[in-house]
Amino acid sequence: MPIEIRQWSSLADAARTTLLARPALAGGQRIRSDVRAILAEVRRNGDGALREFGRKFDKVELRGFEVSRAEKQAAQTCMPDVAVAAIDTAIANVTRFHEAQRPLPIDIDTMPGVRCERVSRPIDSVGLYVPAGTAPLPSAAIMLAVPARIAGCPTRVLCTPPRPDGFADPAVVVAATRAGIERIFKIGGAHAIAAMAYGTKTVPKVSKICGPGNAWVTCAKSLVASDPAGAAIDMPAGPSEVMVIADASAKAAFVAADLLSQAEHGADSQVLLLTTCESLAKAVQSELDVQLASLARRDITARALEHARLVVVDSLETAVAISNDYAPEHLVLQCRNARDLLPHVRNAGSVFLGEWTPEAVGDYCSGTNHVLPTYGYARNYGGLGVDHFLRHMTVQELSREGLARLAPTVVTLAGLEGLDAHAAAVRVRLEHTP
Amino acid sequence: MPIEIRQWSSLADAARTTLLARPALAGGQRIRSDVRAILAEVRRNGDGALREFGRKFDKVELRGFEVSRAEKQAAQTCMPDVAVAAIDTAIANVTRFHEAQRPLPIDIDTMPGVRCERVSRPIDSVGLYVPAGTAPLPSAAIMLAVPARIAGCPTRVLCTPPRPDGFADPAVVVAATRAGIERIFKIGGAHAIAAMAYGTKTVPKVSKICGPGNAWVTCAKSLVASDPAGAAIDMPAGPSEVMVIADASAKAAFVAADLLSQAEHGADSQVLLLTTCESLAKAVQSELDVQLASLARRDITARALEHARLVVVDSLETAVAISNDYAPEHLVLQCRNARDLLPHVRNAGSVFLGEWTPEAVGDYCSGTNHVLPTYGYARNYGGLGVDHFLRHMTVQELSREGLARLAPTVVTLAGLEGLDAHAAAVRVRLEHTP
Repeated sequence: MPIEIRQWSSLADAARTTLLARPALAGGQRIRSDVRAILAEVRRNGDGALREFGRKFDKVELRGFEVSRAEKQAAQTCMPDVAVAAIDTAIANVTRFHEAQRPLPIDIDTMPGVRCERVSRPIDSVGLYVPAGTAPLPSAAIMLAVPARIAGCPTRVLCTPPRPDGFADPAVVVAATRAGIERIFKIGGAHAIAAMAYGTKTVPKVSKICGPGNAWVTCAKSLVASDPAGAAIDMPAGPSEVMVIADASAKAAFVAADLLSQAEHGADSQVLLLTTCESLAKAVQSELDVQLASLARRDITARALEHARLVVVDSLETAVAISNDYAPEHLVLQCRNARDLLPHVRNAGSVFLGEWTPEAVGDYCSGTNHVLPTYGYARNYGGLGVDHFLRHMTVQELSREGLARLAPTVVTLAGLEGLDAHAAAVRVRLEHTP
Repeated sequence: MPIEIRQWSSLADAARTTLLARPALAGGQRIRSDVRAILAEVRRNGDGALREFGRKFDKVELRGFEVSRAEKQAAQTCMPDVAVAAIDTAIANVTRFHEAQRPLPIDIDTMPGVRCERVSRPIDSVGLYVPAGTAPLPSAAIMLAVPARIAGCPTRVLCTPPRPDGFADPAVVVAATRAGIERIFKIGGAHAIAAMAYGTKTVPKVSKICGPGNAWVTCAKSLVASDPAGAAIDMPAGPSEVMVIADASAKAAFVAADLLSQAEHGADSQVLLLTTCESLAKAVQSELDVQLASLARRDITARALEHARLVVVDSLETAVAISNDYAPEHLVLQCRNARDLLPHVRNAGSVFLGEWTPEAVGDYCSGTNHVLPTYGYARNYGGLGVDHFLRHMTVQELSREGLARLAPTVVTLAGLEGLDAHAAAVRVRLEHTP
C-alpha cells in the first residue's frame, strides 16, 4: 500500500501534531527493570556476570573478553585491501574535520590584574560502545574513536558484541585499531555499559561512555549517568531519522534513495519528506516501491516505511518551520538554492545540502560525525565532537592590585547575599601587611 | 573540637578512600517520590498547581507569578547605588570572559568537492533557576543570564522563589534584569523546574534548564532531563566544595578564610586542605576557630567544618594527584609557584592561583562562571559557559565530483555493514545522466 500523501495546509493543528509525533518508545518500564537487574549483577559479580550474560544474550562462551593481538592480526589479514583503504579514507576525513574542533585556550585580563583563563583537559578514561544488532558497524567505531584520540583521552576502551563464533566483527576490530583504540572487549548490550561504568577485573572503569545502541543500551546509559558512582554519557538517544525538504527541482529517484537508506537502519527508523511539489511527492511514492524491491534489507525497510510521511507544503519557509519544530537528526535539503535555506535551519543534527549530498556520505566518510541527536533532542543537543571528550576548566590569578580593584565588588555582593566569610576572605588579604 | 590533622603517608588505602569520600546524598528515595508527585501535579494542573505549591512551600499567596514592571522598578529604586555598581562590575567582567567563548564556525574541505562545516545555533528557549534558600543569590542570576544572552537564546526566563512578603529578592531582580532577562517568575523549588520543563499557561516551556538548587531542585532537573517531553539540563549537582593545596609559603589566615568562605554556603559543604607543611596545618586549625567566631553564619559554617579535612602530604605532587582523584569543584593553589602546578591539574571545576586569588572572587566577579561541577563530576563535566546555551550543527555539501571521489568509500563501507540502500543512494546519483 503506497504511503499516503498529506496536504499540510488542509490539516488542523491536532492532525499536524499527530502527523509529526514520533513513535512512542515501547517497553520502557520492563526494559528499565531488566536493565537495573543487569547493572546490579555486574556490580556484584564483575567478570562472572559478564560471562553469564554473554552466554544468555550472545549465545557464546568466551575464554577471554578482550580481543587478543592474534585476533587483531587475523582481522587485519582477512580484510580485503579495498576495505582497509575505505576505512582509512573515512578515518582521514573524520580526522580532518575533528582536528578543526580542538578548542583554543582563552586567556584574558577582565580587569588589570585579574587574569581569567579557560583551558581544556581530556577526560581521563572513556568507553566507546559499538553495537552489532542487525549489522556490524565499523563506521561507528571510527566516529567514536577519532574524536577521543584527538582529544587525547589517555584511556580509551571499546566494547562491541561478540559474534556467535566468539570473534568480534573483523571490520569493527580493524576500524577501531586503525583509529587508535588499543583495548577492545567482546561484550555487548546493557552489561557492556555496566562493565565500563563500574569496572570489573578485566574491564577498566571509565568516566564517560559514548556511542549508539538499542533500547537496552540506551536505558543502561541513562541509568549509569544518573548515578554519581557511574559514568557520564554523550547524549540521550532514540531511533534514527531523516527529514528531506525538496522543491520541484529535486529528482524523485534521489529523494527516494535517501529515504530508503535511512529506513533500512531499522524498523523503528523515521523518514519524512516535505515538498512544495505534489507531483514530486507522487513520483517519490512510486520510486520508493521500485527501489525497495531490489534492497537486501527490504523487510526491515518496508516496516520502517509504514510510519513514513510524505507531506505537501505551500512553501519552503513552511517546510523549514516544520523542520525546526520536529528537530530531525538528519535534514536533507534538495532544493535549487539549498544553501540559502541554511541560515533559517535552527534545530537539526546534521544538514545535507543539494542533490549531490546523500545522507549516506555523512554516515560514513564526509568527515562529520554520525553520532547525532535523535528523537527531537536536536533542540538542545549537538552531535558528537571533540568537545564531548574534553572538559573546560577555568583558572583565575589576581595580583594584589587586581584584588584591591575587585574588592569593593566582592564585599558589596557578599553583603547582598549575607555571606560575610566571602567578604572576609578578601579583607584578610588586603589588611595583611607583609 | 579542632579538626583532626591527618598524615596521608600513614594512612592505608581504605582509610584514604574514607577520608576523601564525599558525604552520601541523603533522602534520595523519598525526595524522588515527592518530586515525581510535584512534577505530575504541575503537568496536570499547571498554574493551579504552582499556586498550591507556593502556598505550601513558600507560605505565600501570589496574585501573579511574574515579576511586574512596577516590581522591577521598585527593586531598582530600593537598591543602593553601590550595589547597582557592584552588580554592573560583575556583569561586565563575566561578559568579557564569556564573550571570548563564542565558538568560531568551522568550514573546511575534507577532500576536493567535500565541504564540511560546523555552525552554532542558540538554544531556542532556556529556563534559568536562581535559588534563595538561606540566602538570595543575585550572583547566580548573573552567572546564568550573561552566557544565555551572549549565546543569543531568543527566550530566556528565570524562576526564583518568592519571599514571604510576596516579592522576589530585589537584588536578584535587578541583577537578572541588568543581565538581559525580561521575564522573571516568582516560583521556587521542584515545581519551578516542572513549570519550565513542561510549560503552564503562565510559564513558557523551555528546551533547557540551567542553574543550581537544593536536593529537590536537583532531583527535579534530573527527572525532566530523562523525559523526552521534558528539558535538557546543564549538569548534575551536589553540595559545593573547595580543596586548598598549600605549601610552607602560604599564610594560615588566608587559607582559613578560603575554607570558611566555602563552608558558609551550607552545612553540607565540603572543605579540604592538603599541605606539605604540618605547622601550617596547625596554624590553619587555630585560625579556623578564631575567624569562625566572628562570622554571621557561624552555625551553618561550624556544621560544615565537622566534615572538613586537614591532611599533611609529603609533596605537592602527591597533593595534586589526590586532587585529580577527588576532582574538586574549586581548587585553590596557595603555593610559591602555583602556576607551575597548573599543567598537572586534570580534574577540577575552577582553579585559583596564588595568595591574592580567594575563591570568593570566582563566586562573584573575576569573570569566570561559578556554576561548576560538584561531587566529583569535574572528572567528566566542565563549568557553565556559552556552549551550554548553544548547539553545534554540522553541514556538508558535495559537488558531483566530490561525490564521485567519495563513492568507492561509501560503497565499500556500506558493503561491510550490509546496508545496500546506503550504497544505492550514491549509485543512483552517479548513474543519473542529466
